[in-house]
Amino acid sequence: MIVGKVVGSLIATRKNENLIGCKFLIVEPFDKMEESGRFVAIDNVGAGIGEVVLVVKGSGARIGCRMESAPVDAAIVGIVDDGIGLE
Amino acid sequence: MIVGKVVGSLIATRKNENLIGCKFLIVEPFDKMEESGRFVAIDNVGAGIGEVVLVVKGSGARIGCRMESAPVDAAIVGIVDDGIGLE
Amino acid sequence: MIVGKVVGSLIATRKNENLIGCKFLIVEPFDKMEESGRFVAIDNVGAGIGEVVLVVKGSGARIGCRMESAPVDAAIVGIVDDGIGLE
Amino acid sequence: MIVGKVVGSLIATRKNENLIGCKFLIVEPFDKMEESGRFVAIDNVGAGIGEVVLVVKGSGARIGCRMESAPVDAAIVGIVDDGIGLE
Amino acid sequence: MIVGKVVGSLIATRKNENLIGCKFLIVEPFDKMEESGRFVAIDNVGAGIGEVVLVVKGSGARIGCRMESAPVDAAIVGIVDDGIGLE
Repeated sequence: MIVGKVVGSLIATRKNENLIGCKFLIVEPFDKMEESGRFVAIDNVGAGIGEVVLVVKGSGARIGCRMESAPVDAAIVGIVDDGIGLE
Repeated sequence: MIVGKVVGSLIATRKNENLIGCKFLIVEPFDKMEESGRFVAIDNVGAGIGEVVLVVKGSGARIGCRMESAPVDAAIVGIVDDGIGLE
Repeated sequence: MIVGKVVGSLIATRKNENLIGCKFLIVEPFDKMEESGRFVAIDNVGAGIGEVVLVVKGSGARIGCRMESAPVDAAIVGIVDDGIGLE
Repeated sequence: MIVGKVVGSLIATRKNENLIGCKFLIVEPFDKMEESGRFVAIDNVGAGIGEVVLVVKGSGARIGCRMESAPVDAAIVGIVDDGIGLE
Repeated sequence: MIVGKVVGSLIATRKNENLIGCKFLIVEPFDKMEESGRFVAIDNVGAGIGEVVLVVKGSGARIGCRMESAPVDAAIVGIVDDGIGLE
């Protein structure tokens, strides 16, 4: 998983039916994290712009968020309160 | 997921039988996105060249688009109408 | 998926039994593609050296090519006839 | 898998329910490893800050640690005692 | 898959129980391959230090080597005898 900040959001009216009702947020990884650019994640914990979040990538984003049949590859699964070694 | 623009398309007459009927589009990720080069995605929402799209990678591209047994690793699953933090 | 050119092949006499009979080809991605180096893919469509091919990565390479139990992570699944936006 | 050092940890009170009870550690890959930045891994072996660990990524982190339905993509699965070729 | 050379090995006494009995080898990808750093792979074919090997990444490493429930994401699945386009 990586830690990043929510920096934006997305509107897509025309989309795959399994994505209806999903909130799409743009995440910018923290500088020291392995990911180097922004990506889109669905929100699983009620995150908002400006919050520091924990993000899972890959099949865990679908299966861990009970969206087994949705075309999703990244999900925000925690709001980070505090941490050592993030920056 | 990432956001990019459809910049091309592909014709492949000789292909795996589970790909018959698929439309292959070339996607160029937006500059701030983590992906740095173009890739080929199947079209799940009727996208066309020049459109800004939401793309899923990995097993979600197969499973989320009801193509469980197709050799696919990227799918266009939304047309982006608007967004904050994309560029 | 990505598009590349077949630039070589591989011989491995000692290998996992689920790989017996597989043809291993070396693929060099096109310059604009996101992948930046060569990799090994199994051949699912009768490709040969010099041909421009469509390649799938990850679990789709196994499942989409009916090799569910083989240790494979990349497969050539199409011969590219023509395209826009590849180079 | 990769080898790295545990350099931090994370607190996230608000999180996906399948992550309750997980310990989140920050791992910095060794210089010669393919991963170039830090990431968050759950702890499966009782690792602590400063220890050199073996980390698995992807679906193996969920399935190999009996957390099939958790949104996890990296897990610490060994404490490295010794090695050749790590640095 | 990628081709690399076995350059080391790893000892981890304390580890996930599904890894007991596994041999962990350090692989350095060939220069032209897409992977740019070393990683740890389990050995499925009796490889040793100095040998040129074929490596699979991701879920295929588990499933293709009959280790479905092990936390593994890379496996050596062939010894390379000869090849064109590797270097």
